[in-house]
Amino acid sequence: MIKSPLQIARESYAPKMPKALKGSVKIVEGKETESVADQADIKKMFPNTYGMPLLTFEPGEAAPTAARNVGVILSGGQAPGGHNVISGIYDGLKKLNPENKLYGFLGGPGGLVDNEYVELTADIVDHYRNTGGFDIIGSGRTKLEEEDQFEKALVNCKDLNITALVIIGGDDSNTNACVLAEYYKAKGAGVQVIGCPKTIDGDLKNEMVETSFGFDTACKVYSELIGNIQRDANSAKKYWHFIKLMGRSASHIGLECALQTQPNICIVSEEVEAKQMTLDDVVTYIAEIVAKRAEKGENFGTALIPEGLVEFIPAMKKLIAELNDLLAHNEDKVNALEGNKEKREFVADLLSADSKEVFVSLPNSIANQLMADRDPHGNVQVSLIETEKMLIDMVKAKLKVWKKEGKFKGKFKGQPHFFGYEGRCAAPSNFDADYCYALGNTASVLIADGKTGYMASVRNLTASSDEWIAGGVPVTMMMNMEKRHGEMKPVIQKALVRLDGAPFKKFVEKRDDWAENTKYVYPGPIQYFGPSEVCDITTKTLQYEQK
Amino acid sequence: MIKSPLQIARESYAPKMPKALKGSVKIVEGKETESVADQADIKKMFPNTYGMPLLTFEPGEAAPTAARNVGVILSGGQAPGGHNVISGIYDGLKKLNPENKLYGFLGGPGGLVDNEYVELTADIVDHYRNTGGFDIIGSGRTKLEEEDQFEKALVNCKDLNITALVIIGGDDSNTNACVLAEYYKAKGAGVQVIGCPKTIDGDLKNEMVETSFGFDTACKVYSELIGNIQRDANSAKKYWHFIKLMGRSASHIGLECALQTQPNICIVSEEVEAKQMTLDDVVTYIAEIVAKRAEKGENFGTALIPEGLVEFIPAMKKLIAELNDLLAHNEDKVNALEGNKEKREFVADLLSADSKEVFVSLPNSIANQLMADRDPHGNVQVSLIETEKMLIDMVKAKLKVWKKEGKFKGKFKGQPHFFGYEGRCAAPSNFDADYCYALGNTASVLIADGKTGYMASVRNLTASSDEWIAGGVPVTMMMNMEKRHGEMKPVIQKALVRLDGAPFKKFVEKRDDWAENTKYVYPGPIQYFGPSEVCDITTKTLQYEQK
Repeated sequence: MIKSPLQIARESYAPKMPKALKGSVKIVEGKETESVADQADIKKMFPNTYGMPLLTFEPGEAAPTAARNVGVILSGGQAPGGHNVISGIYDGLKKLNPENKLYGFLGGPGGLVDNEYVELTADIVDHYRNTGGFDIIGSGRTKLEEEDQFEKALVNCKDLNITALVIIGGDDSNTNACVLAEYYKAKGAGVQVIGCPKTIDGDLKNEMVETSFGFDTACKVYSELIGNIQRDANSAKKYWHFIKLMGRSASHIGLECALQTQPNICIVSEEVEAKQMTLDDVVTYIAEIVAKRAEKGENFGTALIPEGLVEFIPAMKKLIAELNDLLAHNEDKVNALEGNKEKREFVADLLSADSKEVFVSLPNSIANQLMADRDPHGNVQVSLIETEKMLIDMVKAKLKVWKKEGKFKGKFKGQPHFFGYEGRCAAPSNFDADYCYALGNTASVLIADGKTGYMASVRNLTASSDEWIAGGVPVTMMMNMEKRHGEMKPVIQKALVRLDGAPFKKFVEKRDDWAENTKYVYPGPIQYFGPSEVCDITTKTLQYEQK
Repeated sequence: MIKSPLQIARESYAPKMPKALKGSVKIVEGKETESVADQADIKKMFPNTYGMPLLTFEPGEAAPTAARNVGVILSGGQAPGGHNVISGIYDGLKKLNPENKLYGFLGGPGGLVDNEYVELTADIVDHYRNTGGFDIIGSGRTKLEEEDQFEKALVNCKDLNITALVIIGGDDSNTNACVLAEYYKAKGAGVQVIGCPKTIDGDLKNEMVETSFGFDTACKVYSELIGNIQRDANSAKKYWHFIKLMGRSASHIGLECALQTQPNICIVSEEVEAKQMTLDDVVTYIAEIVAKRAEKGENFGTALIPEGLVEFIPAMKKLIAELNDLLAHNEDKVNALEGNKEKREFVADLLSADSKEVFVSLPNSIANQLMADRDPHGNVQVSLIETEKMLIDMVKAKLKVWKKEGKFKGKFKGQPHFFGYEGRCAAPSNFDADYCYALGNTASVLIADGKTGYMASVRNLTASSDEWIAGGVPVTMMMNMEKRHGEMKPVIQKALVRLDGAPFKKFVEKRDDWAENTKYVYPGPIQYFGPSEVCDITTKTLQYEQK
């Protein structure tokens, strides 16, 4: 690896640690826990890992532990800080017993099933401290769900004498980690399983998990770019920048970036759904702000768009469901038609009246894309919809009508952007570097104490890192029953943006002012070495939630 | 303005200054100069500003100067550091005589003609020190070319008692600054004109102007993002990222970013033109690298694409010229056709055989775009061509053929990106903050000494800022005659990437290794406060050029 100067300088950063993790750790057991909902069902499914107590770490004496081998897996999409979770586990294990070993399974959960691994030694780990990416062992999207996989994994663990696994992943991966923990405990397999909360989307959080790692860094990278674009908009004064931000399920990223940068517009999917807004409502909302700013001669602005928006618009959701069905049944007929125009007309006539209305209102390029790009299951690929361009086209069309009616007198030129890959592998901010390292350390302590079915938890995150509270949360505590692929399943509740939550309320309080007036904030790039108020502050979301 | 924590911390940064600018300045006159070409023509057109000597500043005694008023203009696209040029002029003027005043004309050269201005006082300037953007007075693209404009500007200068103007702009703006200097000198108007070299594109450079300001910062922002994407590619191992980078004329940005990040592919427009490559040649070059990496199981990679690529492909240039002509003469007929398919067929039949071959090889969406989006003059809007997507589609199509032939056995999934607006208004790096402040200071010294038709110049830029050499270069020295809009004009020679230059040669030496093997470098975000080797190093382009 050829290291950049920043990477070299950053290697020697020593993550700041909670007081309780600095020396030996005493584990304090709290109250027994219940799942957030569907207690009876969850308890029945997790007889061995349900109801365990919350754990909190305090400074104290720890009994010496025998040497043991531990495996670690990175699961799903990249998030800044994954390497620090691993170095945190590694250092934690070595502190407990220098004979402890850490194995990394390659390419995600698939590596555990297929027995592809590497022993993580100091001369590997040291090159990845405080760096972004998951390239130390790679990641993957294989889901650990089948008994067959569990058994193969167990054989591989036995081969390597591994008695504990740490699974670093999002809500689904942690759910599966818990299922695996229960399975191994039930059969007395002698392999513990500990989860770690990862996702830039920020939708894995609850009372005991204040934030998932990576959210802080990713939002800061996007906010850097949004700020730069806003300064450009405010200098050139001629473009409306529509910026789509990664995150299919929840709008936490958009909301956080809005709180950091104060754009003119930020669409929050959860609000669109709650208000049962149509696509035209969203377009009208944006166009009205464009028109209002144009009245003051400000023919420029910024709008943040969540990646998953269309799936939160009830009418679009219905249209997509109908299209999935209709295209599956009429594939040959549609393909036989030569031009896109004919295809659109053919398809439109087979839709329900409501969906037809939505379909014909879409820009042709989007309608074509909805017909053309389907995944291997024949479904419309929502992630390929260029929502930012679709909205630019539709706002433009609406303003053209308003111009004729004399309701709009300005100019409108849109510039689309999409940010996602730019932030998932950024070098972790000081916050994420510290938080991840603490999470990794916490996992090592939970392992040493024989725990399974727990997620590493580090809380009180807006206080100084010294005061952070480390411990463990039973994964079952975060579960409820949800319908997945037609079946009721125990899953960790996904945390969407709460419309009664402090971050959203703060945004609502300010947004009209931000819309009409130009109140841009330019956060600039993540700083690692400067004053603490520049380098160590975490997200606005956490700050407002903790207040 | 609501300031971010970084902005507040950054306000107190004191730009590092060349030794000669720290105290009083003595101006040393060098040899008389000649233009780089067409000396007789240029001399004839600039009788009053041709042949002036190079100027170098040294520490020394300066005579006290009477109070005077100066105007400043930001011209053209934003570049990081513009605000520091202005604070450099401001501080320089105040040091020379606290009674000196600086006026900023609003919204670019148009503000000078229309007399829209603001007096720049400490309570304005101080809020913009070391920040990105041109929002302090705005910028604009009005060209100062007509005598009528010169006269109006003169009236406005007289009104404000302004006896010197600083024009901060790219090659065209500096050319016009010199024309204006000559015009005012010829008529004894008593208004000096000084230029300042700005452009993120890096194509305003020569023997005496080592780099234009903003290039350093913009390339660092793009390299941060490219590095993050590369780390993602290398973690997920499933996408080829095609990254288009701003810069219509020259590929300096792409080349610099390639030297900083070591991607698998970087297309350099100047090479494509010199080798008379066709679009298919470019596609084949990329596809071969994709195939070679796939053989090793590496179905991922990164490719940097210069924004202006298609205009450097001779066959595409010809096609676009033919389309401009053909569409102008057949607009009604084309518009009368209903479907895009019919339009494409109609147009294809009117093209020359060569151009038809290129046209039908294009993805339909690109061919449609070439027919649809024309500027007010009826010309194809090359800047709207999504070159990155076009190349993804064409590489994909080629690999499909190769797959059938057994020449390609991997997978190819492309992700398009375009970076431009993300970097133009970033807060200047230490290098650009220092360089711009020194340029501004230099301009103030040239003004105090009564100079006109000069560009502020600060050289020896890879040495410590202490050793930087400040002075002035007659703008006529950089000029040659070029055909513009059918007429021969005196212009500053545009600096394209030199294929015999050190940066390109370095790249050629390395690129095959970078293509096949994964040698990514992850530069990370611009740092303002850390170790000097992280914060103060300028571009690889400058480093190689100066060696």
